[in-house]
Amino acid sequence: MAKKFMSMRNLHFLLYEVFDTASLAKYPFFSDHGKETFDMVLETGMKMGRDILYPALAEMDRNQPVFEKGTVRVHPVVETVVKECGGGGWIGAHASYELGGQQIPNTIMTAFRGIFAAANYSASVYPFLTSGAAHLIASFGSKELIDTYIPRMFSGQWQGTMALTEPQAGSSLTDLTTTATPTDKGYYLMKGQKIFISCADYDCVENVVNLMLARIEGAPAGIRGISLFVVPKMRPDEKGKLVANDLNCVSIYHKLGYRGAPITQLALGENGDCRGWLVGQPHKGIRHMFQMMNEARIEVGMGAAAIASAAYYASLEYTMERPQGRKITSKNPEEPQIPIIEHADVKRMLLFQRAVVEGSLSLIFQCAIYADLVNVTDGEEKETNELLLEILTPIAKSYPSEMGILSVSQGLQCLGGYGYCDEFPLEQYYRDVRIHPIHEGTTGMQGMDLLGRKVVMKNGKAFMLFLGEAEKTIAGAGSIDELKSCAEALTTALERLKEVTGALTGLAVKGDIEVFLADATLYLEMFGITAIAWQWLIQGITAHHALAKLPAAQDALFYKGKLATCRYFFEYELPKTQGLATRLMRSGDGLTVKMEKEWFGD
Amino acid sequence: MAKKFMSMRNLHFLLYEVFDTASLAKYPFFSDHGKETFDMVLETGMKMGRDILYPALAEMDRNQPVFEKGTVRVHPVVETVVKECGGGGWIGAHASYELGGQQIPNTIMTAFRGIFAAANYSASVYPFLTSGAAHLIASFGSKELIDTYIPRMFSGQWQGTMALTEPQAGSSLTDLTTTATPTDKGYYLMKGQKIFISCADYDCVENVVNLMLARIEGAPAGIRGISLFVVPKMRPDEKGKLVANDLNCVSIYHKLGYRGAPITQLALGENGDCRGWLVGQPHKGIRHMFQMMNEARIEVGMGAAAIASAAYYASLEYTMERPQGRKITSKNPEEPQIPIIEHADVKRMLLFQRAVVEGSLSLIFQCAIYADLVNVTDGEEKETNELLLEILTPIAKSYPSEMGILSVSQGLQCLGGYGYCDEFPLEQYYRDVRIHPIHEGTTGMQGMDLLGRKVVMKNGKAFMLFLGEAEKTIAGAGSIDELKSCAEALTTALERLKEVTGALTGLAVKGDIEVFLADATLYLEMFGITAIAWQWLIQGITAHHALAKLPAAQDALFYKGKLATCRYFFEYELPKTQGLATRLMRSGDGLTVKMEKEWFGD
Repeated sequence: MAKKFMSMRNLHFLLYEVFDTASLAKYPFFSDHGKETFDMVLETGMKMGRDILYPALAEMDRNQPVFEKGTVRVHPVVETVVKECGGGGWIGAHASYELGGQQIPNTIMTAFRGIFAAANYSASVYPFLTSGAAHLIASFGSKELIDTYIPRMFSGQWQGTMALTEPQAGSSLTDLTTTATPTDKGYYLMKGQKIFISCADYDCVENVVNLMLARIEGAPAGIRGISLFVVPKMRPDEKGKLVANDLNCVSIYHKLGYRGAPITQLALGENGDCRGWLVGQPHKGIRHMFQMMNEARIEVGMGAAAIASAAYYASLEYTMERPQGRKITSKNPEEPQIPIIEHADVKRMLLFQRAVVEGSLSLIFQCAIYADLVNVTDGEEKETNELLLEILTPIAKSYPSEMGILSVSQGLQCLGGYGYCDEFPLEQYYRDVRIHPIHEGTTGMQGMDLLGRKVVMKNGKAFMLFLGEAEKTIAGAGSIDELKSCAEALTTALERLKEVTGALTGLAVKGDIEVFLADATLYLEMFGITAIAWQWLIQGITAHHALAKLPAAQDALFYKGKLATCRYFFEYELPKTQGLATRLMRSGDGLTVKMEKEWFGD
Repeated sequence: MAKKFMSMRNLHFLLYEVFDTASLAKYPFFSDHGKETFDMVLETGMKMGRDILYPALAEMDRNQPVFEKGTVRVHPVVETVVKECGGGGWIGAHASYELGGQQIPNTIMTAFRGIFAAANYSASVYPFLTSGAAHLIASFGSKELIDTYIPRMFSGQWQGTMALTEPQAGSSLTDLTTTATPTDKGYYLMKGQKIFISCADYDCVENVVNLMLARIEGAPAGIRGISLFVVPKMRPDEKGKLVANDLNCVSIYHKLGYRGAPITQLALGENGDCRGWLVGQPHKGIRHMFQMMNEARIEVGMGAAAIASAAYYASLEYTMERPQGRKITSKNPEEPQIPIIEHADVKRMLLFQRAVVEGSLSLIFQCAIYADLVNVTDGEEKETNELLLEILTPIAKSYPSEMGILSVSQGLQCLGGYGYCDEFPLEQYYRDVRIHPIHEGTTGMQGMDLLGRKVVMKNGKAFMLFLGEAEKTIAGAGSIDELKSCAEALTTALERLKEVTGALTGLAVKGDIEVFLADATLYLEMFGITAIAWQWLIQGITAHHALAKLPAAQDALFYKGKLATCRYFFEYELPKTQGLATRLMRSGDGLTVKMEKEWFGD
């Protein structure tokens, strides 16, 4: 088992040196905190990750949840994780004191969750799924719902979930058919089924609280007829005693990876007595749910970056220790073999991983800070932060997810045949990380969201704000010789992105929406690489200035590594936008739109 | 389970329409054959694939080989596969009549093996590993070895293997330490251990014949001191009775995929009585083995393309049947949902898969034909075929292997959450296909082979021949309007490849070999995409001419699909060479070479 799964040094670099999260303390909501509290949070996360989650990584994979006697048996470490998280206040740490939270910035909790996810992705899902579900109740639920559910969710007694998907409604939420029939007793009677619901049933938690989308009887068809409900597995009766709520797990899925968490299929109201409580306004369920979805999307990005981080350190450790071959210039077979990290191609595979992992983490923290600022600012400042968060969310979800797969794959490749065997963790990471381009909105959906919604909204205001931020970074790099070529390359890439964006929105203006969006996934990829280049330039600038201050030897090595990885990104990754732009400038040909499905036959 | 795993229509297109393999009958060695025999071979392969191999696909994955009581228990279907292949003459089909073979062209047998690999990759490995091992004995072994081993291997009674890797010697074969001590009885006494040896021990075969590399006692150090041996698990004694040869399986590996075939660790000579017989000349083992390695590399490419083929058809079938969402232009939620194949982004994912699969198959058959022609031509013609085969082999191995992973991943993505679950075969294909960039020489090794050896050999003669072939194709497309832009794009890509090749070899001339080869993997990728574009132009030309002849309706759809996929490749894939070229033109900066390993620390 590798020694490291996430670098505390890098977290400190990003959170304090690059982004100065300590300064969040100037806002009243965070005023009790500062670097000291944040360090404590991160260290606790690392300790829990190392001591509780990481040792169970392979075990949870090898011993998948089992569905028997109507419930799901999971690995016993889940109980420890959930209890410790509840007991330590980590499930509700981001919430207000009023709700029982600790008002820790989202950014710091994002790092905390990332540490957990790197240690053991499956195990990390349980407590933080509850955080998200509780946050929804806190934002839109009645006082009664808040009082009933939030304390028990924050304490880890009750698990939270997001219950959206149905057999006929995955990406197309508009087709949900689960119904909610009003009663005169303040609750609705729920009927239907839900699939692919993470952690909606298992044996070592007292109750499960599903935040569920359904259609109130008689509601309009489509997306504007969907409402949000709390539908618990067990409902408190008048005396507060828990009774079964006619909501049953009917099966679980066996999966490629992410095996430590059960993905369930639920049947609601088979006996006509499944009760749900409306959260927020009727028919506004999608809008409410999207608050959670956006957070969840950044969290998915973090999950992918975190797994890729663990894979990177595992492969780094191996390449440091594994002797194989000799320098290409010295073929004397009598000489001892060298560690494979000394081969240029192996260094390339490691730099690729580091570039993806640390570039992704940087963008995720960037988004997390925007999210924190949205909560504590107002007026134009709030809107700016909101728009930047909106436009970068699909990228913060997709770049780590898609590139995380390739990054872990390169990690596996570093180990050769051993990477393919389960004696080493790479094969598990490779399976685990593959979920991320799928859940919480596929990559295809993210592309449509970015190009079809975020880029064009408010006449392109979010897009212009993004360009402005990147240009500020370029200006900051202007005087630094060693970053000059990177700054110039980013300038060119932004010009290219503007040109492509103009060409594509030109198609939209012509009214051919299908052609306009046909290559949205490629646009997402191109935008993603450009955004990560921006983040690498930010990191490069920080590392350059830190190095100029003649730091201690170990820090100097770290900053040199940062600068080398920054150069790597600009030399090897950013040029990929050239080919993407070439295609995107020609998207008007509607190649895929015109492809007839019969032509796939033979 | 999907209906199709490999398209017979496409095999016919490639083998008869594009490459005219029927004309191989003009060479005496193949003169008994023609389209009729070839059809029979392909149909038998398809029938065996469908009836025997395909139904056991998931079962063999779920029931991995078990090591107990000193041997390995495999799925019982293995016995059927090996027996049927032996009985039908398929293991030795490519060999001469003299050896008991049928003189079927390598190209046709490559297709046959591809069908097997698409039906069930693990199961396909057993018989064809034996083919390769037997071919080595036939090429370099003594008459006695040939008489003893070949008939029993061709019949399927005895399994063949390639035993190269040792714990300290994977990519670096020069570091092999297994020793062979001469005796005065015609055999050598073997001592050492081998790891990662496919199928070297299992319960339903009478014997295993390992083609093994080892070092004769006192041999020179390094690659020039390695010899090739036959080391059977059971050796025939004077009376022909099989007795144990002190060669034992000590463990097997548990793997990400490719789980139907056992990968073993072998201990040789623990009791000082493991006997091996020299094959070919002493100290020429690597050269002999490389005959088999080159064949094996093309076979690995086929294995990857075949798995990607099965994944493509599984995802195609799903996208045809799965209703989800509506046309982006008609959001009326009352309308029925449409099959997801009607969404442009899904068609893009399908076109990507088809482009990778059929482009790969085309290049693999191109190589197989060169291999056939090497065997039946002489003089300059033979040399030309040999050089083209040499330079394209690393590409035919790596492009399908690397792109096959991405292709299967897109197939999985087409199924959304279901792609991640084991109810559908995509997750298995995703695991199975990941082996290919590793075994028979990693992608990194293939890059060094291409740039460091093949491109520069004979003053670049092979490279010039490749350019010449591609230019002939371009000339053939010249008069076809609908392919004009593709032909022009290929011309530009070849210019780019020449320019990059010139720049890189310029670095070699300056003597900085490490920098010269540092980006060899990127060069391999760039060359690979260009070579596949060439193959797609060939296919496009054939489809265009076929369509001009007003074929039957179903054929017309097929050819239109070919032309659309050809255009897809030029629009979406070929532009990727732009970014690669940008980096490769700057390889002289030695970015990865200069990266110090200490900079990875923190």
